Amino acid sequence: MTRLLIIGGSDAGISAALRARECDPTSEVSIVLADAFPNYSVCGIPFYLSGEVADWHQLAHRTTQEIEDVGIHLFLNSVAEAIDPIAHQVTVAGNETPAQVLSYDRLLIATGAEPTLPSIAGISHPAVFLLRSMEDCFAVDHYATGHRPRTALIIGGGYIGLEMADALTLRGLAVTVVEHATSVLKTVDPRLGALVRGELERHSVEVVPSVQVEHMEGVSDQQVRVLGTNGFERQADIVLIAVGVRPVTRLAHSAGLTLGSQHAIQVTKRMETTVPDIFAAGDCVETWHRLLNAWTYLPLGTTAHKQGRIAGENAVGGNREFAGTLGTQVVKVFDLVIARTGLRDEEARHAGYVPLTVESTFWDHKVYYPGARPLHILLTGDQRTGQLLGAQMVGAVQGEVAKRIDVFATALFHGMRIEDLNALDLSYTPPFSSPWDPVQMSAQAWRTAQR
Amino acid sequence: MTRLLIIGGSDAGISAALRARECDPTSEVSIVLADAFPNYSVCGIPFYLSGEVADWHQLAHRTTQEIEDVGIHLFLNSVAEAIDPIAHQVTVAGNETPAQVLSYDRLLIATGAEPTLPSIAGISHPAVFLLRSMEDCFAVDHYATGHRPRTALIIGGGYIGLEMADALTLRGLAVTVVEHATSVLKTVDPRLGALVRGELERHSVEVVPSVQVEHMEGVSDQQVRVLGTNGFERQADIVLIAVGVRPVTRLAHSAGLTLGSQHAIQVTKRMETTVPDIFAAGDCVETWHRLLNAWTYLPLGTTAHKQGRIAGENAVGGNREFAGTLGTQVVKVFDLVIARTGLRDEEARHAGYVPLTVESTFWDHKVYYPGARPLHILLTGDQRTGQLLGAQMVGAVQGEVAKRIDVFATALFHGMRIEDLNALDLSYTPPFSSPWDPVQMSAQAWRTAQR
Repeated sequence: MTRLLIIGGSDAGISAALRARECDPTSEVSIVLADAFPNYSVCGIPFYLSGEVADWHQLAHRTTQEIEDVGIHLFLNSVAEAIDPIAHQVTVAGNETPAQVLSYDRLLIATGAEPTLPSIAGISHPAVFLLRSMEDCFAVDHYATGHRPRTALIIGGGYIGLEMADALTLRGLAVTVVEHATSVLKTVDPRLGALVRGELERHSVEVVPSVQVEHMEGVSDQQVRVLGTNGFERQADIVLIAVGVRPVTRLAHSAGLTLGSQHAIQVTKRMETTVPDIFAAGDCVETWHRLLNAWTYLPLGTTAHKQGRIAGENAVGGNREFAGTLGTQVVKVFDLVIARTGLRDEEARHAGYVPLTVESTFWDHKVYYPGARPLHILLTGDQRTGQLLGAQMVGAVQGEVAKRIDVFATALFHGMRIEDLNALDLSYTPPFSSPWDPVQMSAQAWRTAQR
Repeated sequence: MTRLLIIGGSDAGISAALRARECDPTSEVSIVLADAFPNYSVCGIPFYLSGEVADWHQLAHRTTQEIEDVGIHLFLNSVAEAIDPIAHQVTVAGNETPAQVLSYDRLLIATGAEPTLPSIAGISHPAVFLLRSMEDCFAVDHYATGHRPRTALIIGGGYIGLEMADALTLRGLAVTVVEHATSVLKTVDPRLGALVRGELERHSVEVVPSVQVEHMEGVSDQQVRVLGTNGFERQADIVLIAVGVRPVTRLAHSAGLTLGSQHAIQVTKRMETTVPDIFAAGDCVETWHRLLNAWTYLPLGTTAHKQGRIAGENAVGGNREFAGTLGTQVVKVFDLVIARTGLRDEEARHAGYVPLTVESTFWDHKVYYPGARPLHILLTGDQRTGQLLGAQMVGAVQGEVAKRIDVFATALFHGMRIEDLNALDLSYTPPFSSPWDPVQMSAQAWRTAQR
């Protein structure tokens, strides 16, 4: 009988708890979480704010009841304030309850990440919001319902920024996205970023790249003026800041755990920290990258689930290793889907590969069947060995972009050579593909360019 | 400079020709084909007959001009009548031209397959059609345009039969499908077949299983009465027969090539036949099955493309092996998509595995995001080793079923264990998946059932 205490009730924490109970039904599993919303899909927040999800309760992967029904104890609205690794104790304070000390045999730290707060003057205006937790979500929704803003400025053209541009446009606001890089969605190649920008503009979103926002000032209680480099100046009724996240690791650090890149917690592939009996998983830890062969900080919900599951299994006596991330990601922006897996050209070069990246465009299914749309693929491979290193893709919502990138991700997992993608027995029917899937046609284009 | 002569201008033949020219631009490549329609997508015929494809010319993967532009010579409307393997010559007769003798250094036989003609009395009525070639397609279209049939009877509930049921319903006909097995689409499990039958019936297609059609008779010039076992009797204005195909190998046999299962041509993985300098590929050959570790007859367009490409490369001096088929297939029937890869339970048992097949159902994306539909997955693995053996899936058109089966197909290609599917870094965003993709949730369900 293992007493497993988990700090954090989002993806990693809940996955660990469920897995621990599954592997060892005698284990006593408790979760301390800072709010009252365990296991919420924060990735779903944009779809709630857009109005596509009617009831925010739907965003829960599981209800509190469902979690408790499998024998997991929840400490809601409770903050872990200190860890005593030698005594195996955690001090937990409730909102209005006195601090209590909880004992553990194994501890899992799954404190996640928080939005990076950029150094912008005047950021405290009531119409300016960060977006990470369910409470942030409610704050934006409450404000938008109460004040009915007509214009929105989004600082940051990454995944969340663009999903929010889509969401607020759907909600009827006129949206501007300001991004410090030269193209939006800078996790993909600028050529694909340009396609995304086109899609945003087609839906009347103003995109302003190459601007560093420096200053905000209230024009009124309900309007903010935002100023930046290159003479940037806009007024908006609501401002959202989405410029990235950083791991929440103050508690871990004060307990003596070693931190690594970007102050994320150092872990082994078994999700052990540097302190005995303390595991860590999710957006607060360093992640093993399968292609870089290195530890990196790459917070993703899918990874948090995997790491949590492994930590939960190992915490109750299992022995499983995290196989590593490939950085597989997908995002929908209006009618476009953008996905990537593995390394981009410059990432591969930096990691010591000799990359070649080839762009090609195909119909997402046989063009004679109605509704075919272009599918843009950037394939990166090693020039010397022919090894597949990464793929980026932009296509239409109907183009099965998400699962096509997953074919690449599965191939990458196995270290395939690009030429060998042609040997994969992939499915074909005219409404969904071609006899050579675009995955394979892009491999053929890469090989032609390699010669 | 190799003179490569190819008999057959469909998937395998054209793929071989293109690849030969690509690998060796000095090669002289000629194709003899029996009709005037090289490189047509016969898989597209149902979508032309449904009216979804306006112009049949669109069904060509490439135009005659495009093929000739890469230096491939076409003998249209020409039939290869005899092969002299010692003299390296083929006698070819045109429709209205005298026979001529063509010499080759390397010969590729890519004569494809033809519909199986069931032993049904009265099959020669003008309202009764087989469906394989473009000429069959024109015949049906011409008849349907001229006679405006209102009722159709389709014999055979396989891929083509069901696509035609969809197509003719879309064209406004009342359709009945009669199938000798107890469920339609018998390439998948009867549980999934039942879902397909439900979809057909929702679209007013009558499905009559467990009937062997025995007899047809003309009621009039434009109506046929069809009689079968179990008291089956229907009248229809048009009858389509789609009960499977068989390899076209009479020419190959008369040239002394060894035939194997179902009289398909025996080949090596290099696509060599038993006769020197003669290659064969596509629907007329035996195919190596990667999981059965055996030669089988499994004609598929995707396989024909792969084999043709390999044969073309090897014919001009290359050395590439066919990696084997997994039998990956997908079909759209109205708003459902049905796909499979690898082995089904009984196929696995027959091959010496100890299979366990587990059925599970998930939402195809996060249910809070609009439009989520159920995705039914049957996962087959080996109970002793945990090895993945096959997957079958039924979901909605938007459910990325085709490319999800391809994730399984890619995993199968690498001989993955089911448990290890959880380690794959698959993409996630709420409109397209869950943090654990249904592929992985089905793996978890299988593991739970295995214990």
